[in-house]
Amino acid sequence: MAAAAAHQEILTKPPRALGRLETLSIQLAGITGQACPSMARKAILVMAGDHGVVAEGVSAFPAEVTPQMVLNFLNGGAAVNVLGRHVGARVVVTDVGVAADLDAEGLRSRKVRPGTANMAQGPAMTREEALSALQVGIDLVAEEIANGLNLIAIGEMGIGNTTPSAALVAVLTGQPVERVTGRGTGISEQVLAHKVRVIERALALNAPDPTDPLDVLAKVGGLEIAAMAGVILAAAFHRRPVVLDGFISGAAALVAARLNPLVTDYLFPSHLSVEQGHRIVLDALGLEPFFDLEMRLGEGSGAALAMGLIEASAKLLGEMATFAGAGVSTAAEQGR
Amino acid sequence: MAAAAAHQEILTKPPRALGRLETLSIQLAGITGQACPSMARKAILVMAGDHGVVAEGVSAFPAEVTPQMVLNFLNGGAAVNVLGRHVGARVVVTDVGVAADLDAEGLRSRKVRPGTANMAQGPAMTREEALSALQVGIDLVAEEIANGLNLIAIGEMGIGNTTPSAALVAVLTGQPVERVTGRGTGISEQVLAHKVRVIERALALNAPDPTDPLDVLAKVGGLEIAAMAGVILAAAFHRRPVVLDGFISGAAALVAARLNPLVTDYLFPSHLSVEQGHRIVLDALGLEPFFDLEMRLGEGSGAALAMGLIEASAKLLGEMATFAGAGVSTAAEQGR
Repeated sequence: MAAAAAHQEILTKPPRALGRLETLSIQLAGITGQACPSMARKAILVMAGDHGVVAEGVSAFPAEVTPQMVLNFLNGGAAVNVLGRHVGARVVVTDVGVAADLDAEGLRSRKVRPGTANMAQGPAMTREEALSALQVGIDLVAEEIANGLNLIAIGEMGIGNTTPSAALVAVLTGQPVERVTGRGTGISEQVLAHKVRVIERALALNAPDPTDPLDVLAKVGGLEIAAMAGVILAAAFHRRPVVLDGFISGAAALVAARLNPLVTDYLFPSHLSVEQGHRIVLDALGLEPFFDLEMRLGEGSGAALAMGLIEASAKLLGEMATFAGAGVSTAAEQGR
Repeated sequence: MAAAAAHQEILTKPPRALGRLETLSIQLAGITGQACPSMARKAILVMAGDHGVVAEGVSAFPAEVTPQMVLNFLNGGAAVNVLGRHVGARVVVTDVGVAADLDAEGLRSRKVRPGTANMAQGPAMTREEALSALQVGIDLVAEEIANGLNLIAIGEMGIGNTTPSAALVAVLTGQPVERVTGRGTGISEQVLAHKVRVIERALALNAPDPTDPLDVLAKVGGLEIAAMAGVILAAAFHRRPVVLDGFISGAAALVAARLNPLVTDYLFPSHLSVEQGHRIVLDALGLEPFFDLEMRLGEGSGAALAMGLIEASAKLLGEMATFAGAGVSTAAEQGR
């Protein structure tokens, strides 16, 4: 990091004129241990899973959309595919717990169980299932590093998954459920009020222990959320920067950070989502988003856009000319 | 625009979940007259010029840096080159008024005069010179469209050019000089106070007519600023979207918008600069920046990054699958 910071000072620009792009590049140097790291090889790891709590009527879309969208990802037609191609990142789709039989070309099939149980009636998963889903993410990072991987983004697909995310965030931050529960894909005011009550009931019923992140994850989390938390833990272990998307990936990051606070040094934000509660998650993680485009799609769409910015910061550090190399006078020579 | 908006509604995502990326794509459709416009061919038009007012000691860098940085641009070593390569945009550098003989390969030599006169002692340019510099930008757009051009960004190089920019913005918005004058490349508190006094003296001496944008441009503007205003006028004329950079390009846009208010429909913001006064310029233009990365470099660096976002919005509109095409259920089918 010191070498990267020193190099930034001799590049042909006023000191610190590139703002956060400079601090980003220095963070990348620290994560990778390289003074001029490359972010050329990028992957968006999309985790898919279903949610028993959808039976309570908390989502604007039917659960069948989860497998339908997984196929859309594999066919390259979703927003995350378009944005992945745009920034030069491959999209890797993993079935951690879709409640349908899926056997499509290109899909990583690592189903722990076909959807979680309805957390409004009992725990979403057992502790062992939560650990297995975490392990899916951990293993995937190791596999993808073998394919070449400098920069990781996480994304998800799982109809209903803002509901367990809000439950996780409420427990792990201590905020009231209504402050961290939003409209997801676009529910009405009435359905939102119902969603808050469903989450409050699930928390009262399951009584997750806020000091035991794995207990919280198992009781009111999700399979794809657990797998994203596993990706984050593994990214930090393997010294790879990992880019968050919106509210759901933020909930996964909160679980990972409570399991091991060191991971926060490896996390990069992307956008600020429209989803209520995202700002609370980012504040809890100590992250300031790069942009607010009023997005609320998930999939890794915001993270994909941020990958472009993060790679740009690395290229600026690695490719810009120096004052001496380009024969450009410095401010110091002017004496002001 | 209606066709693009209707197409956004059938793409595989919740309605309006892509936020500003959707409205951006609809604006691009309106500008180009195409329901699914391509932003594949991109150019950053960098205008260079010097400023007589630098003799008053208003900049942290010596004026010799202007031609030095022009050569750096031509050699591909500056930040704008790195970011141009990153987003797939060519960088076109034009000498509108550098105060040095420059005859380098790749440079467009359209020098109107070797730097402006010192506006603290008289008008920066004659009205004819300001018109000639505007024409440089107008002609360049026509030439570059012949090379293939869907999306234009503007950038600049000119040591001292936040000083005339602040003068332009003060006159055209009616704001006090001290509210729109910032630290540029990094001057001290004392030099900033001096810079404000120099601008106030220039305005008192030249008495530009705020209702005559060309008079303001000539008396307290700059050659590269005039050329950027010309690019904006021509971009609108040729129905090409044009992306602003920071404070200086914003001042140019304000001049263009006062010459013809219709240009604002063709303008895209990029970042919010650290330079004091940029927010005032954006508010006057009715633009909300996409991101704030605490940048203050100029050159077109922020505009280059925004080009990536704008092209992404066009690709999403053009490349995403539809609900019917991908066999994905809609929220309406759920009946919520």
